[in-house]
Amino acid sequence: MAMYSFKNDYSEGAHPRILEALSEYNFIQSDGYGEDRFSDKAAQFIKQAAQNEAVSVYFVSGGTQANLICLASLMKPYQAVIAAETAHINVHEAGAIEATGHKICCVPSEDGKLTPAGIQSICDLHTDEHMVQPKVVFISNASEMGTVYSLAELKALRLVCDQNDLYLYMDGARLGVALAIEESDVTLKDITDLVDVFYIGGTKNGALIGEAIVFCNPDLNHNFRFYMKQHGGLLAKGRVLGVQFETLFQDGLYFELATHSNRMAQQISESMKSLGVPFLTNSPTNQIFPILPNTVIEKLLKKYAFYVWSKFDETHSAVRLVTSWSAGQAVINEFIKDFSEIYSQS
Amino acid sequence: MAMYSFKNDYSEGAHPRILEALSEYNFIQSDGYGEDRFSDKAAQFIKQAAQNEAVSVYFVSGGTQANLICLASLMKPYQAVIAAETAHINVHEAGAIEATGHKICCVPSEDGKLTPAGIQSICDLHTDEHMVQPKVVFISNASEMGTVYSLAELKALRLVCDQNDLYLYMDGARLGVALAIEESDVTLKDITDLVDVFYIGGTKNGALIGEAIVFCNPDLNHNFRFYMKQHGGLLAKGRVLGVQFETLFQDGLYFELATHSNRMAQQISESMKSLGVPFLTNSPTNQIFPILPNTVIEKLLKKYAFYVWSKFDETHSAVRLVTSWSAGQAVINEFIKDFSEIYSQS
Amino acid sequence: MAMYSFKNDYSEGAHPRILEALSEYNFIQSDGYGEDRFSDKAAQFIKQAAQNEAVSVYFVSGGTQANLICLASLMKPYQAVIAAETAHINVHEAGAIEATGHKICCVPSEDGKLTPAGIQSICDLHTDEHMVQPKVVFISNASEMGTVYSLAELKALRLVCDQNDLYLYMDGARLGVALAIEESDVTLKDITDLVDVFYIGGTKNGALIGEAIVFCNPDLNHNFRFYMKQHGGLLAKGRVLGVQFETLFQDGLYFELATHSNRMAQQISESMKSLGVPFLTNSPTNQIFPILPNTVIEKLLKKYAFYVWSKFDETHSAVRLVTSWSAGQAVINEFIKDFSEIYSQS
Amino acid sequence: MAMYSFKNDYSEGAHPRILEALSEYNFIQSDGYGEDRFSDKAAQFIKQAAQNEAVSVYFVSGGTQANLICLASLMKPYQAVIAAETAHINVHEAGAIEATGHKICCVPSEDGKLTPAGIQSICDLHTDEHMVQPKVVFISNASEMGTVYSLAELKALRLVCDQNDLYLYMDGARLGVALAIEESDVTLKDITDLVDVFYIGGTKNGALIGEAIVFCNPDLNHNFRFYMKQHGGLLAKGRVLGVQFETLFQDGLYFELATHSNRMAQQISESMKSLGVPFLTNSPTNQIFPILPNTVIEKLLKKYAFYVWSKFDETHSAVRLVTSWSAGQAVINEFIKDFSEIYSQS
Repeated sequence: MAMYSFKNDYSEGAHPRILEALSEYNFIQSDGYGEDRFSDKAAQFIKQAAQNEAVSVYFVSGGTQANLICLASLMKPYQAVIAAETAHINVHEAGAIEATGHKICCVPSEDGKLTPAGIQSICDLHTDEHMVQPKVVFISNASEMGTVYSLAELKALRLVCDQNDLYLYMDGARLGVALAIEESDVTLKDITDLVDVFYIGGTKNGALIGEAIVFCNPDLNHNFRFYMKQHGGLLAKGRVLGVQFETLFQDGLYFELATHSNRMAQQISESMKSLGVPFLTNSPTNQIFPILPNTVIEKLLKKYAFYVWSKFDETHSAVRLVTSWSAGQAVINEFIKDFSEIYSQS
Repeated sequence: MAMYSFKNDYSEGAHPRILEALSEYNFIQSDGYGEDRFSDKAAQFIKQAAQNEAVSVYFVSGGTQANLICLASLMKPYQAVIAAETAHINVHEAGAIEATGHKICCVPSEDGKLTPAGIQSICDLHTDEHMVQPKVVFISNASEMGTVYSLAELKALRLVCDQNDLYLYMDGARLGVALAIEESDVTLKDITDLVDVFYIGGTKNGALIGEAIVFCNPDLNHNFRFYMKQHGGLLAKGRVLGVQFETLFQDGLYFELATHSNRMAQQISESMKSLGVPFLTNSPTNQIFPILPNTVIEKLLKKYAFYVWSKFDETHSAVRLVTSWSAGQAVINEFIKDFSEIYSQS
Repeated sequence: MAMYSFKNDYSEGAHPRILEALSEYNFIQSDGYGEDRFSDKAAQFIKQAAQNEAVSVYFVSGGTQANLICLASLMKPYQAVIAAETAHINVHEAGAIEATGHKICCVPSEDGKLTPAGIQSICDLHTDEHMVQPKVVFISNASEMGTVYSLAELKALRLVCDQNDLYLYMDGARLGVALAIEESDVTLKDITDLVDVFYIGGTKNGALIGEAIVFCNPDLNHNFRFYMKQHGGLLAKGRVLGVQFETLFQDGLYFELATHSNRMAQQISESMKSLGVPFLTNSPTNQIFPILPNTVIEKLLKKYAFYVWSKFDETHSAVRLVTSWSAGQAVINEFIKDFSEIYSQS
Repeated sequence: MAMYSFKNDYSEGAHPRILEALSEYNFIQSDGYGEDRFSDKAAQFIKQAAQNEAVSVYFVSGGTQANLICLASLMKPYQAVIAAETAHINVHEAGAIEATGHKICCVPSEDGKLTPAGIQSICDLHTDEHMVQPKVVFISNASEMGTVYSLAELKALRLVCDQNDLYLYMDGARLGVALAIEESDVTLKDITDLVDVFYIGGTKNGALIGEAIVFCNPDLNHNFRFYMKQHGGLLAKGRVLGVQFETLFQDGLYFELATHSNRMAQQISESMKSLGVPFLTNSPTNQIFPILPNTVIEKLLKKYAFYVWSKFDETHSAVRLVTSWSAGQAVINEFIKDFSEIYSQS
């Protein structure tokens, strides 16, 4: 693959400091299955970053696993989760949630986000035991469309959840970039105050693998390790996850990497906007969806790898460009230059 | 933890060559979800080690995950898996198999191994649609009790499976040490010839994380990646698994590490036997189960960490000692010396 | 309940001839779990009615049970069923399908029916192992909105299924009334020629309880009784179902009852249409959905029981009126008269 | 089938009074899904029979269904049920419990009964999240081997459940005969005092179909109807179950039928014992397991149908004879006479 890939933010390995830490601690013996000092340390750093000592932290290897284990632990067999039609759990997890026995009640969404009205409409429809009982609201932040929830939006979601006796769950596969946007008014502490359970994505923000599940509602994590074990989510060498999150959270590396990812995407975004390119969504994060002439896309694909996301009209398509923690300024500059040339000729 | 731990073979990180490889390839971009060049290379090396180009290889993060995904893919909803009562899937996976909807039909076993007679007895009992239909035989090699199947035993299991239309599945969390025992008459090729599906454990033999699932029966892996995805087993950075298994299998490191693990345990074993210590099972691998006076155990636990496995009689218990690829000769020598002193005083 | 109920078609017991047959055969001993002579006889009569000796027939106690058992038997764990958003399995079975591990891919529908285009759109979206794989198309005939598929429509559905390697499954809870409509061009034989599996509803057409599952595709019913047993669908006294379907199908009683149900509803429907009442759907069967002024509904509810189905506008709602095999001409006449009076005063 | 069958207690239809009641109420309209006056009445009669107004009663169509729905409602996904190896849920329900995701932890049992020691041994083994967590104790009364629990035994089971935070569930498919044995010291009230949930079997004691689930522990039936619906257990014509249990419990018919069933079996039993025939278990109920010479069995099978249960030695087998509410004294007399002749010639 000589060409540079904007296909996703997990095309490379890990931030070098993570690899160094893995080497440094390599021969220190530790207990298995997450009961090691590194995982303890990592949990402690996450609590500090969230300014919230009351949360509980667990580490698993991937996002689909985090979602299926958490949601399975939050619902009784007849309960269901409300999600945007675009939600990862609805579209891209091969039926993982249904495989644990639960229905996903979908709400149409243009920008990947859920609204209180959408949630309420599902609740209003489900009135008796002939239907499932909605119990969890699933949101992704940043969403699958690159968009981000504001503090006011999160508070409104919390309110509608409280009014309907629902739990609020946040898929934070890309939580880093959501918190790191320039105009952000949401902190990690806010998240722990407003949602019941969420996870902090490591895989897409500089880790080799790993996601940190955070229970904010202390009534909900009882026997959670049973759920982890039952779904193959307890790694024998849990230390591998612990060391990584310790590194990411001990001095802010996690947020630095996310800030960089966003900045690289936004440079591309701004450059395109200055050329008049429209976008599918208004994304301030590291995933952007410009709508381009198919002829431009064809030429770009000769030098860069990325996904063509959806057909826009007969001659245009939306593409998805994702920048990562490791994207160098040079390659971004080059892409911007290449794009300008190709686009201006189109 | 100043004391040395014989609790398991996953107390340390990874073999240094694995960490080096992860660093070396770190910034090479690759596609996600196992469709990377490292995973391809690793699969190729495994095929070479097995002298069998026809097998299919998939990588997942852990053993319970490997078991639950593979078994889920091998059975229809009304089918069941036959296993020894001591089997990991029956005892130590928090009901992971049942959570996918399947019953485990247990056969009593002293040494952790299944016999053709045990399998046949289960088949004979299950005669109609009021009962589950046995479909898969699950064996662990090495077993949870440290024991190993001989070639003749594996052939006999294959035969009883063929006679009863059953698939043969091998949990190879500790396959390395099983193949690496001095008196072994079984090769990786034999395994691919005799079982339908198995996995090669990385986590317990020098990898950071990871198990390589090998489908030998070409009729069975159709759409297997759907099963992986649905259970959270497709890692976005599948490359992490690929790089590790590439390292382990490109020049025999996997077998070297296993040989070392066995040798260390057998040195302890032989030393104990020379002192007249009896054992729970006849284990040639890196897990040994000496039966010791409780007073001896108490003294040993002051300097070494290990699990007390089971009560033997009022004054004796079996303990489990596990050696790993990283156990140095010095610490083994020291343990042997310490043990001799303590035991001779008892 | 002095008032007459149009709430559904299962408000009464069974057609008297069914009760007579149950009494007549009461003391004849028979084997359990569907292996009795009555079930055999009933299956034979159904084959004759379908002019198709090649089908296989099984009896269960209810419709949700029929749906969940059949669909569970038709799909691998990663496969999904395509259905109209209004489908009973999507709305009114408390997540029964998801509880067996499968996703329902929904298609918007105004009239309760699926179209080839709707099915194709779902297939086109599902392209790889990150998504579920659509495998079964679920249709209800008559639909939950009272509508019926024509022969041409069924053939078109069969074609799109064949083109996409999908099974076609028909929920026939109200199959009787669908086949019995005046303008019907579909026979039971057509159904067996065009769908893979369907069931013939007894509960809603004169039986005490019971549905007859019919496998038309001979590749699909292998070990089906295991699925029945596993989900509690094999009745010890399977004879109870056998006797009823024997009675319903030995000389056409099933179709007579359905014809009557339809006629009663259509009399109401025609009367209302003559008064200018609009309808939610164009239903030729025993379920009709007139849109009425709320003031009229209020007055009607004093004498008749029925469900208010959905809000139409600020002053109108759609109601659901269901007539059954046991609805007498007198009560229908009375209702029509009452309605005319109330409506003309509104 | 000219020969008389002792294969089971569900070979005939229903007690005539049940058929009469179904006819009598046939045209009274009622609401669906168990919300009818007959079901209410039946529940009221059951509460009276139990002298316990605080219990909650639900009706389903069969025993496997009752077991799988109740147990699914009592356990979290990682929890398991303790049962005798001979338990119906373990042997004869095609993996129905595992299909809801739960493991059955088996205790060996000769007579079909569980003991406190057996339960405690399972609890002692399950210590952490690598294993399932036992949560429910399943007992059958009468057991699958015809045996019955005494009041003292039930109290001891309750105690061990309380000590281990377990629910006690009783499968009462044959509860009638258990309570109706001559030497019984257990009442229906005792059952409601001692177990958390149980069901009263109708199918095997004179009903056409139907079992009455009784929740004694008021903390456990919250939203139980969702579980019923999800598993296909809510019958549209719930009235069919209501009318039957109303008839069985309004004036003691249920106990009369059970008493008769027992008496018929015990006449056979006593006659055989007087001839020196040994039995597999000491059954005071309507299921008996005499051990007979194979030659005798062969001759008996020419005139009577019954199951050969298990091989005893080279020349003897245990058979199962089951008498029902409808077994006439004449046929029992004839069987006893036939048996005596055949046995004395052997």
